[in-house]
Amino acid sequence: MRKIKVLTNFLEANDAVALENKKLFDKHKILVLNLMSSPGAGKTLILEKTIEKLKKHFKFAVIEGDVATSNDAKRLAKYDIPVVQITTESFGGACHLDASMINKAIQGLKLSSIQIIFIENIGNLICPAEFDLGEDRKVIVLSLTEGEDKPSKYPVVFRNSDLLLINKVDLLPQLDIDVDLILKNTKKVNHKLPAIQLSAKTEQGFKKWLDWLVKEYKSKPKRKVCSGKWRE
Amino acid sequence: MRKIKVLTNFLEANDAVALENKKLFDKHKILVLNLMSSPGAGKTLILEKTIEKLKKHFKFAVIEGDVATSNDAKRLAKYDIPVVQITTESFGGACHLDASMINKAIQGLKLSSIQIIFIENIGNLICPAEFDLGEDRKVIVLSLTEGEDKPSKYPVVFRNSDLLLINKVDLLPQLDIDVDLILKNTKKVNHKLPAIQLSAKTEQGFKKWLDWLVKEYKSKPKRKVCSGKWRE
Repeated sequence: MRKIKVLTNFLEANDAVALENKKLFDKHKILVLNLMSSPGAGKTLILEKTIEKLKKHFKFAVIEGDVATSNDAKRLAKYDIPVVQITTESFGGACHLDASMINKAIQGLKLSSIQIIFIENIGNLICPAEFDLGEDRKVIVLSLTEGEDKPSKYPVVFRNSDLLLINKVDLLPQLDIDVDLILKNTKKVNHKLPAIQLSAKTEQGFKKWLDWLVKEYKSKPKRKVCSGKWRE
Repeated sequence: MRKIKVLTNFLEANDAVALENKKLFDKHKILVLNLMSSPGAGKTLILEKTIEKLKKHFKFAVIEGDVATSNDAKRLAKYDIPVVQITTESFGGACHLDASMINKAIQGLKLSSIQIIFIENIGNLICPAEFDLGEDRKVIVLSLTEGEDKPSKYPVVFRNSDLLLINKVDLLPQLDIDVDLILKNTKKVNHKLPAIQLSAKTEQGFKKWLDWLVKEYKSKPKRKVCSGKWRE
C-alpha cells in the first residue's frame, strides 16, 4: 500500500507544479504542446519542418528532453529560436520529463515573446504519459515502422493524447503494415483521438498537421496569427 | 539524499533476486537472454524466426513482458513452446521487467526441459537497462529506422548490453541512414559491443545471429547441441 501512496503523492506534487506552469503559459497566451513517442519516431524532424514552414507566422520556442546529449537542441537551434535542453542523466536517467523540469526550463525563456512552445519529451511510450507538464495538448507520434499493435500495448499514452501523428508513411510500400488496423486499435483505447498520417521526410500529409496546429493556436482567446513577418 | 538511498536499496533488492534466478538457470544449464529495444524494433519477429529455425535443435521457452496485451505471447505460442506472459498493468504500468517478475514467471516453467529462455523485455530503451533479471546475456535490438544517434541518447542500455542487433536492414535503400555512424556512436559508449546487421523479415544476416546464439549456448559448460530432433 505504501508504494501506491508514495506514487499518488508524487503525481499530485507534479500536478501542482504543472498547474503553475499552465497558469504562466495562459497568462502569456502561449500554446504548449507535449510531443511523445518511441525513440526515433521522428519528433525532431517534424519540429524542424514545422518551424521552417511556420516561423514567419509564429514565434516558437522548444524545450528538448533527452536522457543524454543535446543533439536535438542543436538541430533546432539553427532556426534561430530559443531552445532549452533538459537532460535527465543528472536526475538518475529519468525516463520522462516532469512539471518541475519544465518549470526550471521556462525560467530561461522570455515568455512574453513566445507564442508556441513545443516540448519534445523523452523517447518512451510509457513513463511520459502519466506526467502532465502544464501543456495545452499532448501529441503522440507513432512511426509506421513500429507496427499495428502499439495503441493496444501502450494504452495510457494513446488514451491521454489529443492528437496522433502517424509518421513515416512514405515507407508504406516497403512495409507489411495495415494503417487501418493502427486506427482501429487506436479507436479501442481512445475513440476520440484524431489521427493524421504524414511523412516529415517527404512532407506528404504535412499540411494537415500544420492546419491542426494553427487551429489549436487560434482556439485560445485573444490570439492572432501574423499574416506577414513578425517584427521585433 | 533519501531518494537516492531508496533507489539503491531497490536495485540491491532486485539484484539479490536476479542472483537467485541466475543460480536456478545455471543449475539447469539454461542460457537466458534478455532482449531489450524501443517499441516496434522487431524483437518478436526475431524470436519467431529464431525459434522456427532452431526448434529442432533446442528446447526454447519465452517470457514475454508487456505493459498490456498478450499479443506477443500468442504469436510465440504457436511454435508449441512454453510461453509466460507478464503484463505490468497490474504493477502500475511499470516500464521494465524486474527480477521478481521473472522469479514468479519461471515458477510456471519446467526448467529441467528447457535449454534457452528468451526474455522479451518491455519496449523501452531506458528503464529495462538498469534491472538485471538473472540473464546470461543482454541483447539490444535497434531498428534501422530509429536513426544514428540512439547509442548516444540512450547510453546505459548500450553500455550494459552484450550484443547489438541492428534490425530492418532491408529498409536501408529507402532510408537516409548511415549504418557506419550507428556503429561509430555505439563504439563511443561501449567499444566492446559486437553488432550484427540483419533483417528478421528478409532473413538477411540472420545466420550470424543464430551462430552467435549457438556459440553462446555451447560456451556454458556441459551443454550439448542436439544434432537431430529432440525426443521427450
